[in-house]
Amino acid sequence: MKNYAKPLEKLIKELGKLPGIGGKSAQRLAFHILSLDEKSVDELADSIREAKAKMRYCPVCGNLTDREPCEICADETRDRNTICVVESPKDVFAMERIREYKGLYHVLHGAISPIDGIGPDDINLKSLIVRLQQGDAKEVILATNPTIEGEATAMYIARLIKPAGIKATRIAHGIPVGGDLEYTDEVTLLKAVEGRREI
Amino acid sequence: MKNYAKPLEKLIKELGKLPGIGGKSAQRLAFHILSLDEKSVDELADSIREAKAKMRYCPVCGNLTDREPCEICADETRDRNTICVVESPKDVFAMERIREYKGLYHVLHGAISPIDGIGPDDINLKSLIVRLQQGDAKEVILATNPTIEGEATAMYIARLIKPAGIKATRIAHGIPVGGDLEYTDEVTLLKAVEGRREI
Repeated sequence: MKNYAKPLEKLIKELGKLPGIGGKSAQRLAFHILSLDEKSVDELADSIREAKAKMRYCPVCGNLTDREPCEICADETRDRNTICVVESPKDVFAMERIREYKGLYHVLHGAISPIDGIGPDDINLKSLIVRLQQGDAKEVILATNPTIEGEATAMYIARLIKPAGIKATRIAHGIPVGGDLEYTDEVTLLKAVEGRREI
Repeated sequence: MKNYAKPLEKLIKELGKLPGIGGKSAQRLAFHILSLDEKSVDELADSIREAKAKMRYCPVCGNLTDREPCEICADETRDRNTICVVESPKDVFAMERIREYKGLYHVLHGAISPIDGIGPDDINLKSLIVRLQQGDAKEVILATNPTIEGEATAMYIARLIKPAGIKATRIAHGIPVGGDLEYTDEVTLLKAVEGRREI
């Protein structure tokens, strides 16, 4: 016997496709799953299928949701003057965790990256323009990632909306809280000095 | 919105139950799964369910298999004079990977561990004794893990089978190939010296 039995091999292959799960991890997970009772295995398989079946993107903001429009877009208590633009639904959840931001969101599902052939039309940008034309947004917070693509996307959107009289702001770059000056890279430190504020 | 939508939350919770998958990883995997097309998601869910449904333990050796008896037990070309005793099905696959061992296996599904309340009757040991009484085994290779529990289990089995005239051997402890003497712990180095062989 040189190979795993077919069903086990298939399971290891499927698990190995997940991000951050290499061959060894996939094998470990597969053996763990086989050691579970049938109910737990069904729950795992069902949760995967059900999440995929029920979750979709909000037609307004592009966030992941199980209803239309999403909970945030539908929430009348939220500040409709501010829209926070992020790259992925994950970022919405990250923003929500700070429990401070009370505005709306717009999920781009990517960032402009000419090198990868991703232009402004390939991300969820047109619907943002429509929202800005129709809505009450006064400020757009550009919370794309601090990468080349994220910066380019933020610059692009800022230039696009400024003529319409809408304020475009970019989240601050700097040293993470709890971080160490000594181990901070030069670009971040430069941004931190540039972004200094009077205390 | 402080929480994920229900189906997403359930998926993250289920993925978080897997070994080595913490909260952050579970979230990342969940978002990845939702970004897959429906076919890929079905394949993943099906592979989990199918593996659990089809894989079972071999009634002879206790190894994971999709047929009875397992491929190794059924293979007439394998040496029926030797049985390699391991703790888990994973260990069988590890042994098979060396492509050198041609005997049979016996999977204990655990190791004797009085501190955890696991005695000789709680592991797949009785069926080994039955096999030894009925079969042609002349040597039992004790390949349990080099832990306290694994060593205790190996010693226990060795004492149990020696009176029956069956040879009991233990796999060698020593420095791993490619390892470094300087960084080898004392116990391993002691075992390596004790187990030295003339060249």
